[in-house]
Formats: sequence, structure tokens, C-alpha cells
Amino acid sequence: MNTKNLYGCDALSYPQGHAEEPLIQEFGHEMARPVGEIGLADWMLKRGPDAVLLTPGPLNTDPRTREAMFRDWGSRDLQFLELTATIRRSLVDIINGHDLFTAVPLQGSGTFVVEATLATLIPRVGGKALVLVNGAYGRRMAQMLDYLGRTYCIYETSEVTPPVPEEVDRLLAEDPAISHVCLVHCETTAGILNPLAEIATVTARRGRRLLVDAMSSFAAIPICAGKIQFDAVMASSNKCLEGPPGLGFALIRKSALVGAKGNSHSLSLDLFDQWQSFERTGQWRFTPPTHIVAGLHRAIELYQAEGGQAARLRRYRNNCRLLIEGMRDLGFESFLPEELQAPVIVTFRPLDDDRFDFEIFYRYLADRGFVIYPGKLTIADSFRIGCIGDLRAEDMRCALEAIRQALSELTYSCKKK
Amino acid sequence: MNTKNLYGCDALSYPQGHAEEPLIQEFGHEMARPVGEIGLADWMLKRGPDAVLLTPGPLNTDPRTREAMFRDWGSRDLQFLELTATIRRSLVDIINGHDLFTAVPLQGSGTFVVEATLATLIPRVGGKALVLVNGAYGRRMAQMLDYLGRTYCIYETSEVTPPVPEEVDRLLAEDPAISHVCLVHCETTAGILNPLAEIATVTARRGRRLLVDAMSSFAAIPICAGKIQFDAVMASSNKCLEGPPGLGFALIRKSALVGAKGNSHSLSLDLFDQWQSFERTGQWRFTPPTHIVAGLHRAIELYQAEGGQAARLRRYRNNCRLLIEGMRDLGFESFLPEELQAPVIVTFRPLDDDRFDFEIFYRYLADRGFVIYPGKLTIADSFRIGCIGDLRAEDMRCALEAIRQALSELTYSCKKK
Repeated sequence: MNTKNLYGCDALSYPQGHAEEPLIQEFGHEMARPVGEIGLADWMLKRGPDAVLLTPGPLNTDPRTREAMFRDWGSRDLQFLELTATIRRSLVDIINGHDLFTAVPLQGSGTFVVEATLATLIPRVGGKALVLVNGAYGRRMAQMLDYLGRTYCIYETSEVTPPVPEEVDRLLAEDPAISHVCLVHCETTAGILNPLAEIATVTARRGRRLLVDAMSSFAAIPICAGKIQFDAVMASSNKCLEGPPGLGFALIRKSALVGAKGNSHSLSLDLFDQWQSFERTGQWRFTPPTHIVAGLHRAIELYQAEGGQAARLRRYRNNCRLLIEGMRDLGFESFLPEELQAPVIVTFRPLDDDRFDFEIFYRYLADRGFVIYPGKLTIADSFRIGCIGDLRAEDMRCALEAIRQALSELTYSCKKK
Repeated sequence: MNTKNLYGCDALSYPQGHAEEPLIQEFGHEMARPVGEIGLADWMLKRGPDAVLLTPGPLNTDPRTREAMFRDWGSRDLQFLELTATIRRSLVDIINGHDLFTAVPLQGSGTFVVEATLATLIPRVGGKALVLVNGAYGRRMAQMLDYLGRTYCIYETSEVTPPVPEEVDRLLAEDPAISHVCLVHCETTAGILNPLAEIATVTARRGRRLLVDAMSSFAAIPICAGKIQFDAVMASSNKCLEGPPGLGFALIRKSALVGAKGNSHSLSLDLFDQWQSFERTGQWRFTPPTHIVAGLHRAIELYQAEGGQAARLRRYRNNCRLLIEGMRDLGFESFLPEELQAPVIVTFRPLDDDRFDFEIFYRYLADRGFVIYPGKLTIADSFRIGCIGDLRAEDMRCALEAIRQALSELTYSCKKK
């Protein structure tokens, strides 16, 4: 357990006592893979030549999800319409939206559906948004509102500080023109979990409407329409649902959507029109990415089979715990205190060592099939490692082992705090 | 050859003389397939359980294209950025755009990229579009301009009539405010090929700019930047390139794009910004549909291996000829004269027989794995059969055989003209 490696660094407790053995071997012709006594054979068989994506997305998908993408579908086929209808129902079920909410999928990335939702639900005249900003995705919502020509104001906190509900309450009390509050549930800039329930309570009490960018939290962190009040939640096929990227969707309160005709700035992004088409004909207005739809359908089946939101949260929490503990053992400090850290992506400080160069570190890991992510903090140097997608404990352990090896081979010293 | 079937209809010349044999047998557990003496074994092996999509899209893709979608990619991987860069270069090559044009891919369906291009290139102030309309896609461009709040006028001809270049010339002469002409190259409403070269000549001579929706013609019907003048051509991954649906792209004259900053109404659809990101970092601004990108990359490799545009046009022309001749033998008349018919999708009149019900006909064929398409003409009852996508002569022959069988089993009489 406490074996020291060549650089004086405690070996990871897992794998035990093999720190001096070569851990990187060629795997097939595609990628090098770490090899140790940690049941890697199964792991390698499962992973194949794919990289392990420790990022905020795109993420790893289950091979069974990708298998479902191997078929060509006609977009007007009854079977395909049934896939779409099943997805829409399942998404509403995830927030317990029952008859009050409807799911409106949209072609494109998550950003497309966030922009589409803001444009569809915030009226041009009489609408004003309060955007809660503590990272890139809050700022992006403000940027969208600039494009849309909608009136808005911003309440900004630092990237490691959640918005204070009492302050939101004060802002709403002071400005009766504010009709909508826009919140990013999990802001992956730092990896922070924002206080959705508390903001929802304040917003509802003041009679305003809440729009939630739940891109990287949806389906893992609970969002229950029966417990908190919101008008829309936006997310995408490729985050915690572990489908392929290429689709976004908004879960919208029907009573908000019925009055939204004519609000949108864009034909392609008009979610009122998109919804009407699904309701009237079951069809997509414009060519859907059929393979992605089929992949998402399969991914949702696998999600349900795993045990739904509770099971997924359990797996991601475990991934996150292994990651933070393992990185701490290697000398890396995470930025956020535990109570603010979403089990989605973790921001780490670089080693306090002149020889630590993120680009070299990144490249070393990428060459071995582990893709981490640059930092996005404006306040400090950082990098990020994600723990969502089709990743399990053994993936996190292998990633940590590769990082340990990187530190060893790249001759960094590892500092214990 | 002239064997009459039970209903007095001439049997198809292919397969020969087996009209009375059962042509539909169970194939595997998925779909019924037509079986005859036409080398169907290979055909079935190739097709597997997928439907044959005789539609304007989504279309059939090559299994090798779908295989390329089986891998998970990180969107910042160098290898993935190289996929994107290769696609962009290849697309410019298809129009011989050399250094004058750049390819800007965009997440979403073809409609998304058409809207994005109109918004990015037609300025809010000082821009005015002349939209040439002879079908649904011309009308859709006008609808987009309504959303965008851009000034425009329309020159409309019937769905089976191409715009007259002299009339376009007259309209441009009369209205110097018109800055852009918008044309649909192949309007799949009727299947008409519009006179791109002639319209381009007139537009250029009047010093105006041409934007071409080439969704269903790009990569099959020649569009050469060296021969005709235009500012943008828009198309998608899933038409004649035979990639999976989920991506559009515009090939834009760089000199037009550099001045387009701030024109767009939408962050997601801003092609100036999208272009800048590709140029600066090689990266997509927002999560790309990685599997679709990989599929399109493979599809373009297969396109080049087949012989590029000339080879693809040859195959589609042959498909189209077989289809029109075969349908004529079964008593179906196509709408368009040969010189207006694009080898993309063919509109047919329903049989002049009270017993002909399109829905029953459609369902019969769909149940056997052949998906045809309803008509879109406003002027007459019709239905459509496509001939693009990963379809070859044997697919068209099998489709015709299934149609013959439908006519036979559904006890329609077939009328020779």
C-alpha cells in the first residue's frame, strides 16, 4: 500500500505493489493501454480501441448503444416514429413531468436547444431574463440573449461560488420586469452544482419562471417536477443519458409552451413549431439524425435497466470519489469543497512544480487512450477530469494508474500535502 | 418478356417469366423480402434487415459508413480534428473551390444550415433577397427570411416549371435593392432540376450574389466554382454523399464570409463564428455529433473510391432510368419531362383506378422493406420514389418487383398507356 515509487510518490493503493512494473503496453495496433493486476483484460476487451473520455462531453457510450446506430431508418417509418415517441415519454418520466410537461427534442448540440428554449419561451416584448452566471455556460446564455435581442440582467458570482438564493430573491423583488430566471444546474466550468431547489423556490414565490440548463446533470442528479417549480429543463443525448451526441431536448411545461407561438427568432430552432409537429403527426419537422435517435433510444433502455437516475448517480458518485481520492494521493488538489462538487467533472490545480506542463501531461495520457480536459477557470490555472459517461470504477482506477505512470515517466515529483 | 400476369399486366422484363411464382418470402425474422431469379441472395446479404429507402432522405448508407460510427471520439482529439479538417477540404474540392471557398459544417439538419447561411450572408440592413420558388424548399427559404426579418421578394413558378433566367434578369434589372438570389438546385417537391448555370450567369451579370440550396444535388450533379459564380452552396451529410444524417454544411466564398460578422440572428447558427472557430483552433464551437462526423468522413472516402461526382451521377442516372422505365411498364406515369427530371426523386401519378389507395400501397411496400414517399405537389395527387443513397440497379429492380407484386396482390389493374 505504501510502496514508494521511483519519484518518492506513494503508489496508488490499486493496483497494489506493482509500481515498478511497466504499466503501459501496446494494445493491438491502435492505442497503448495500462496493464496491471487489476482485471484489465476484461476492461480492455470492453473498451476496444476507443479512448476513455474523461471530459464534459462527448462521452463514452455503451457498445450496445452504438450497435443500435448500425441500422438505417426511414424518418417516416411507423417504427421510427415509435422510437421518437418512446424517447419523448421516457424523458418526461425522468422529471416526473406526467401530463404537465412535454419533451421537445431538437437536432444539434446542447447549445442549440438552450438557445431554442430561451427564444421560444422568453417573449420579445414584456420578457426580461435574470441570468445567474458562475461559468462559461451562464455567460453563454447571456450571449444568446444578446443575439436574440432579449432584455436581460446578470447576477454573477465567481466560478467556485454558487448564486445566493436570498440575493436572487432581492433582485426579483427590486425588478418586477424580470419574467424569467435562467440557471445552469451543473456548471462544468468548475464542476459546481448550483442550488436548483432553493433558486426554484425563490423564483416561484416571486411568481417568475425558471429555465434550467441541466445539460450535464439531467438524468443523474434529481430534478423532480413534483418537488420544484420550473418552466423548462434543457439537456442533451450525450451527457448522463450516455447516448451519442447530436440531439438536444427541452422538457417544457405545456402551459408555458402553448402561449409561445411566434416568439422564436428562428425557423430551425422554433420549439413551439417543433412541438406542434410532434403532437400533430409524431414526425420531426426536419430530417432527424435517425442513427442518433436510435442510439438514444437504446441508451435510455440501458439507463432504465441500470436502475434509472438513482443508480446512475450512485455510479457517478463512486467514480467521482475514486477520482478525487486517487488524485489527492498523487498530489493533486481539487478546487471545490465536497458540498459544491457535482459528481460530473472535477477541476484540479496543476502540480506546484515547474516541470508540470499540462500539454505534455495531456498528450501522454491521450496517447495511452485517456482523454482529460483543459481547465476553463478564469481565476486560476487548472485542468479537468470528468467522471460521467459509460465509465465505471475500473475505468477510473485505470485512468488514475495512467496518471501515476505519467507522473513517474515524466519525472514529476509528486507532493503530498 | 410479354408474359401477362393474372391481372392482364405485362410482367416486368426482369425477372423474366416468373410472374406467377411467389416473390415474397420471409427473410430472417425482420422483414419479408422479394425473391426471384435476380441474384437476390447477394442483395439480401448486403441489405440485411434495413429498409430500402426510396425517399428524399434519410437515405441508405453503406455498411462501411455505419461501421465508422461504432467508435467514440473525443471532440478535441487531434485525430478527430483531422477528420473534420479532411471533410472540410474534401467538400471544397467537390466544387473545385480551391482557395476561394471554405467549408463550414453545422450540427443539425439541412434546414439548419440553409437558415444559417441566409442569416449569415444576407445583411440585416441593405440586404434583400429574391427567392425563386417552385416547391416546398423555395417556400421554406422565404419562411426563414420571415423569421429573420430580412427583406425579400419571390418569383414563383409552378412546381413543374423551372424559373426563366430572362425573367430573373428582368426582376434584377427592375429592383436594384436585390442583393442576393436564392435558388433550390434540385427541388424535390416534384423532383425538378432548376437551371443553376443560367441563373448564376444572369445573377453575376447583374452584380448580385447567388445562394444555392443544393441539398439533394450536391456531390452528384456538377456544381463547379470555376464555371459558375455563387457565394454559397448548402448541402447535408445524408444526401448524395450518402453519410448519416445529422450535419449540414455550407461552402462559402471566403470574401463573402469575411464581411459577415454580426449578421447572424443566432449564436448556434452563426456561420461566421463557426468558421472562425474552425480556422483558429480546428475545433467545433459546440459539441459535434462525433459519430456522424466519423460516418461522413468514411462516406466521403467511399465517394472518392467510387469515382466521385461523375461516378455517382452515373449510378443515380441509371437508377432513375430503371425506375421510370419500370414504373411505366407497370402503368405509372412520371410528372416531369426528361429534361427537367433530376436523377434524385421521381414524382408519379397514382394509377387511374378507384381501387388504388396510396396508403395501402405504401404500407404493403413498407412491410416488405421498401419505403417510398408521399407526394408533395399542391397541383395534383402524386407519390414519389427516390433513386439516391446507397442504392444500385439491383435495388431498383427489386423495388420494381415488389411494386409489381403489390399491384398483383392488391388486385389493381395495371393500365398500359
